[in-house]
Amino acid sequence: MAKIVVFGSGIMGTALAFPSAENGNEVHLVGTFLDREIIESIQTTGVHPNLDLKVPESVQAHQLEEAAEVIKDADVVMGGVNSFGVEWAGEQLAAMMQPGQHFLCVTKGMRADEDGNLKLLPDVYRSYFDPKLAESITWNAVVGPSIAGEVAVHHDTAVVFTGEDKEALEYLAGLYRTDYYHVWTSTDFVGHETGAATKNIYAFAAGFADGLLRSQGKENDRYVMYNMGAALFAQGQKELRSFVKFMGGKPETADGLGGVGDMFVTSMGGRNVKAGGYVGEGIPFSRVRDELMKGVTLEGVAAINVVGAALRKLTERGVVREEEYPLCRFLYSVVAEDAPLDIPWEKFFADLS
Amino acid sequence: MAKIVVFGSGIMGTALAFPSAENGNEVHLVGTFLDREIIESIQTTGVHPNLDLKVPESVQAHQLEEAAEVIKDADVVMGGVNSFGVEWAGEQLAAMMQPGQHFLCVTKGMRADEDGNLKLLPDVYRSYFDPKLAESITWNAVVGPSIAGEVAVHHDTAVVFTGEDKEALEYLAGLYRTDYYHVWTSTDFVGHETGAATKNIYAFAAGFADGLLRSQGKENDRYVMYNMGAALFAQGQKELRSFVKFMGGKPETADGLGGVGDMFVTSMGGRNVKAGGYVGEGIPFSRVRDELMKGVTLEGVAAINVVGAALRKLTERGVVREEEYPLCRFLYSVVAEDAPLDIPWEKFFADLS
Repeated sequence: MAKIVVFGSGIMGTALAFPSAENGNEVHLVGTFLDREIIESIQTTGVHPNLDLKVPESVQAHQLEEAAEVIKDADVVMGGVNSFGVEWAGEQLAAMMQPGQHFLCVTKGMRADEDGNLKLLPDVYRSYFDPKLAESITWNAVVGPSIAGEVAVHHDTAVVFTGEDKEALEYLAGLYRTDYYHVWTSTDFVGHETGAATKNIYAFAAGFADGLLRSQGKENDRYVMYNMGAALFAQGQKELRSFVKFMGGKPETADGLGGVGDMFVTSMGGRNVKAGGYVGEGIPFSRVRDELMKGVTLEGVAAINVVGAALRKLTERGVVREEEYPLCRFLYSVVAEDAPLDIPWEKFFADLS
Repeated sequence: MAKIVVFGSGIMGTALAFPSAENGNEVHLVGTFLDREIIESIQTTGVHPNLDLKVPESVQAHQLEEAAEVIKDADVVMGGVNSFGVEWAGEQLAAMMQPGQHFLCVTKGMRADEDGNLKLLPDVYRSYFDPKLAESITWNAVVGPSIAGEVAVHHDTAVVFTGEDKEALEYLAGLYRTDYYHVWTSTDFVGHETGAATKNIYAFAAGFADGLLRSQGKENDRYVMYNMGAALFAQGQKELRSFVKFMGGKPETADGLGGVGDMFVTSMGGRNVKAGGYVGEGIPFSRVRDELMKGVTLEGVAAINVVGAALRKLTERGVVREEEYPLCRFLYSVVAEDAPLDIPWEKFFADLS
């Protein structure tokens, strides 16, 4: 039995409250300043409005003002904000978390410095902590194919808890593991977090086919465009694996839950795929961003912007070769420069011989 | 310009007649004894009834009796029968093909001998040929994510022509390559053919989720079972890669068009997925085979039967370890022994540490 605090009451953090609360842990959901209505809804009706589900009765919901109080004697603190809120959340948690607590990161993504050096988000959280405090906390993350609502309704889900301390990972896994929430552990933290961050990049491309079909009036035809989607998926998998290696992770992690599995589930739908669909229809991405999906959180586009820009700098510096990551570079030209959907097939699968 | 004969007028062989005929090649479709009505339909109306499309006007269709005549001066002969017809087709072609011709295999699958040693289908075709004749023929195959009808309607498709002779591969690729049919070449014949054969195994599992949802009356729910499908896909990818290595192919081939790309497209639908769906509903596979889908060609089930049985023998002989390929073994117990859909999660992702 542990006290778990989810900081940020988005759908993923909240979904993980289901297995952990059902296991008898004391689970608290803390909303950020953006989550006021979510917390109010849970406090009054029990329902998380975005999940459209009642959270387990034992879960306690709190507005941000109660965060320090509820975090101070927690065993586990989950970082549940989206990638845009990591710097803010890092600052907050650095002032509230206590020595010896376990951190479990739900947020996925990367940051890059001005030279293009990439950083994983748990490291961004950590950078706000006093070094001595940071040292006494275990830094972990949950990765793997998880549509939040599916976890909440008890559909089989397989994930990896990753971090550097195997013992802490096993302890954490034990708090969440149920007969439908299958948890493995791995100390390939860098590989898993890299896969989880870059899979969003390629999910954007998964929307192209549907958009193309719509623009050609073929969306109800017998023959759709799975061949194209599969080719992009395969090139995406090659690049995802290459990113895992580049960041210092184990290549085989790319084949697993945090790599191809997560890319598969993310490609099946969601906001990034929808945004890619508009581009498939022939709409310049700037119009998607500024009009059609204005204000919508697009983690995949954020990842493309960060990694795509970093790749150009890394290439200039001779760290990455020009011909590497052609799909990621193309996606960057689409979202950052309104490039049209002219897929550079000739640059793909360059390793074949 | 070349003379190309497609032996077996199924949907895939026929679809490849589109890019090759459009490129100005002389393309002939020859039906097997099972294809009489298809050939008659093409001869009288131009329409391939299963594709539900008109084949290019320049394509000539022939009944089996004309095979020897049309093959004798061909440059390229395509093996277009399904995996159940390979022995018959091998015998036929061995008596008709001529020295110096190029063979391009469309059929995917494996055979196993009584010790469980696995053999790729192009090698089965070849085994019927006089060794001297076989030596003078180049043996090639086309792999990659290709739903036949999508090729025929000119949707972007990316494939690999694989064989041992790079020059022959480039020659062949040039005959088929168009602005929508993107062709790479690779001499990792074993790796590509293994990926293409084993991907069908895992596509069967892609149907489970939909069946489970139906059996629980949840098929129209907001939350479906992509998490489960993605986890099985990831375990499938691990096993596919392992098979590629086991057969002597290059591991990186598993990431490409003939590996994960082909598995992705096959998982999106089709007969194997449908059969897996019935199992997901809780129907014993023997009933699917003998009643619900009686007479339907199920390449995935065929592959599971061949490879699953071979794995047991290879394990007995100590060639493969008991804990390897847990998903393939489970699928074999489902199709060969009517095992219920009790997914052995605890055996998956055993390489994590």
